[in-house]
Amino acid sequence: MYTVCVRDHFMIAHSFRGETFGPAQRLHGATYVVDLELRRAELDADGVVVDIGLAGKALAAVLAELSYRNLDEEDGFSGRNTTTEFLAREVFERVTRRIAAGELGASAYGITALRVTLHESHVAWGSYEGALPTSAGH
Amino acid sequence: MYTVCVRDHFMIAHSFRGETFGPAQRLHGATYVVDLELRRAELDADGVVVDIGLAGKALAAVLAELSYRNLDEEDGFSGRNTTTEFLAREVFERVTRRIAAGELGASAYGITALRVTLHESHVAWGSYEGALPTSAGH
Amino acid sequence: MYTVCVRDHFMIAHSFRGETFGPAQRLHGATYVVDLELRRAELDADGVVVDIGLAGKALAAVLAELSYRNLDEEDGFSGRNTTTEFLAREVFERVTRRIAAGELGASAYGITALRVTLHESHVAWGSYEGALPTSAGH
Amino acid sequence: MYTVCVRDHFMIAHSFRGETFGPAQRLHGATYVVDLELRRAELDADGVVVDIGLAGKALAAVLAELSYRNLDEEDGFSGRNTTTEFLAREVFERVTRRIAAGELGASAYGITALRVTLHESHVAWGSYEGALPTSAGH
Amino acid sequence: MYTVCVRDHFMIAHSFRGETFGPAQRLHGATYVVDLELRRAELDADGVVVDIGLAGKALAAVLAELSYRNLDEEDGFSGRNTTTEFLAREVFERVTRRIAAGELGASAYGITALRVTLHESHVAWGSYEGALPTSAGH
Amino acid sequence: MYTVCVRDHFMIAHSFRGETFGPAQRLHGATYVVDLELRRAELDADGVVVDIGLAGKALAAVLAELSYRNLDEEDGFSGRNTTTEFLAREVFERVTRRIAAGELGASAYGITALRVTLHESHVAWGSYEGALPTSAGH
Repeated sequence: MYTVCVRDHFMIAHSFRGETFGPAQRLHGATYVVDLELRRAELDADGVVVDIGLAGKALAAVLAELSYRNLDEEDGFSGRNTTTEFLAREVFERVTRRIAAGELGASAYGITALRVTLHESHVAWGSYEGALPTSAGH
Repeated sequence: MYTVCVRDHFMIAHSFRGETFGPAQRLHGATYVVDLELRRAELDADGVVVDIGLAGKALAAVLAELSYRNLDEEDGFSGRNTTTEFLAREVFERVTRRIAAGELGASAYGITALRVTLHESHVAWGSYEGALPTSAGH
Repeated sequence: MYTVCVRDHFMIAHSFRGETFGPAQRLHGATYVVDLELRRAELDADGVVVDIGLAGKALAAVLAELSYRNLDEEDGFSGRNTTTEFLAREVFERVTRRIAAGELGASAYGITALRVTLHESHVAWGSYEGALPTSAGH
Repeated sequence: MYTVCVRDHFMIAHSFRGETFGPAQRLHGATYVVDLELRRAELDADGVVVDIGLAGKALAAVLAELSYRNLDEEDGFSGRNTTTEFLAREVFERVTRRIAAGELGASAYGITALRVTLHESHVAWGSYEGALPTSAGH
Repeated sequence: MYTVCVRDHFMIAHSFRGETFGPAQRLHGATYVVDLELRRAELDADGVVVDIGLAGKALAAVLAELSYRNLDEEDGFSGRNTTTEFLAREVFERVTRRIAAGELGASAYGITALRVTLHESHVAWGSYEGALPTSAGH
Repeated sequence: MYTVCVRDHFMIAHSFRGETFGPAQRLHGATYVVDLELRRAELDADGVVVDIGLAGKALAAVLAELSYRNLDEEDGFSGRNTTTEFLAREVFERVTRRIAAGELGASAYGITALRVTLHESHVAWGSYEGALPTSAGH
């Protein structure tokens, strides 16, 4: 199994609901350094997992949708705690849609799984990983 | 699959038995920077894998049992080589018991697997990972 | 010249005023991983630059004053852009006051300079460094 | 499952064919920081996954075969794009052969899987992982 | 004294002349992860050392002049060993010229010193630092 | 000013005397990841600060004198707390002597200053830096 990973980051404000979160119930924020891993069993004709330039652009585009925002005021997140692990899945879903839409190139339909890791500090990170829907339609 | 990771460290003295270990047969020591990864398929009602504050406290408590000690003189390790990979499992087992005892909160019974990684230098690390016993009793 | 460094982090929300800042004019946030460096020419009687435990506690106390807050609403920062470099100096000043107040122990009066570095992502950091006032009063 | 990882690096020149690669079609180069992970279910009699000294030597030997070379002129790579993920597999195969040849010691026949990761910058890496052939012959 | 740092990277091929360099006399290559530090005594009116967006663009522009090239064939480097430390100064000089040309904005004339660090692997780096010419002309 | 840095590590046992040290008064240990920085104003005829291969060997030789030992039982450290900052200076002095003895080559007499940093964990490090004696004798 091959994996390629590209890294980028985004910066947001948010707050959490629930006593579990202690002082993080107050409005605060975070930098998330994001690792996007793309996986497949065999390389494509160019000898790569994915066009790494397109992968980087797709990740940057997804993060630009989130960055420099107060997530408490984003419609899609209403009533949700935008925790690190929740956001990891959100990035996973958005990248998955861009792959399906062809933004990472035709070869990217061969990607079988993704993992998205959000580093929130030097001592904590969260991730979401999963298989991609089969690309039979392509 | 979701993962959350918390990091901490401990510092110990020890020695190894066996010609394989060369100069490490002498009494020496190590700093271990420890990554504790906790995994589950779905987030809990708060939108988290685990109460990260409780996870950090449990890891710190486990490491305090080991840190600032000469492991050659600890009863539990008599006759064992306390290698990086051996200690990774030891931390795994101790964290597992604390989860079972409820120290990470009721939601933590939903955690299905752990991975413990001990970084011993900038060029070497060891880890142990495994499924947790099913939490049917809870 | 000797230096000792301790690391911790804090997480805040804020926004910037000025066209220079582009999308960062919106309310967003950041994790700052903070390195506090303490410097002196000679070690104290214990063979250290500073009691590293007390240094870590002082840094944690300073960061707790800032963390999990919206800095736009903190009185002390009214009308200021709380940039990385601005906050580095803020941490510098607050640690300096704690040293002067004796929180890092009597030996810490021998510290002659500090450097505070705030890492805001994997690709950017800011710092402030300066000499400490002479400790003639002690 | 236990894992042990050793790290080393190599430095090469190469170029890529295919419009996908943009300016990387020109002769350029890379430093690859290599993580070799070795995995097995149970520790050996010494309490280790592998003799870490031998593992490090085997990795260094494999990387010395590649380092300080223009891969475009190496016979084995003729007509291939020596991408990060391609080279990760190449290192995987070469380490696998050294394990089979006994260079990592008899205990290393118990290793069941490897992962090789090549970090090409602070924002990108590629890896190849796979099971080792069963060691029934030994 | 305030410092702000931005990070980027470039990838080149080259070879060295001189027995000192051993196997690095062969054509090989490197990834250089570059830290550009900009320093000044006081912040500007926006509360920053420099417009970090412009600083990042200027660094990227300088690195694009070097990246994906065989430095042995670049006119400016004829007869020179393009070592890590040599290239650190080269980046320093090129960024200095862009600051003087106003590419980092008018406020950047207040920058008094730069440091450029090139990380060539996980175990080696080189840097060049120096004062900037006084900006009396501005 | 140019700087080149090489990294290596060593692993020791020791204990500290003094109530300041709390549980670190017990026999424990540490991994120290060591950065040796060598500085000079101008490059030598090869275009380098130092023969980086010789610098790495000298650092490895110094660390081999310390590694895999209980420092409490080393004659040279009798009655001393072998703290991180103390050991940083010790490495500084030993490297300085090797430079003076010509182990880093004749060009290394042009090195004017060293900095030695010992990273003891992901949250703490200590360093010692100083000018080298003038090399008039050479």
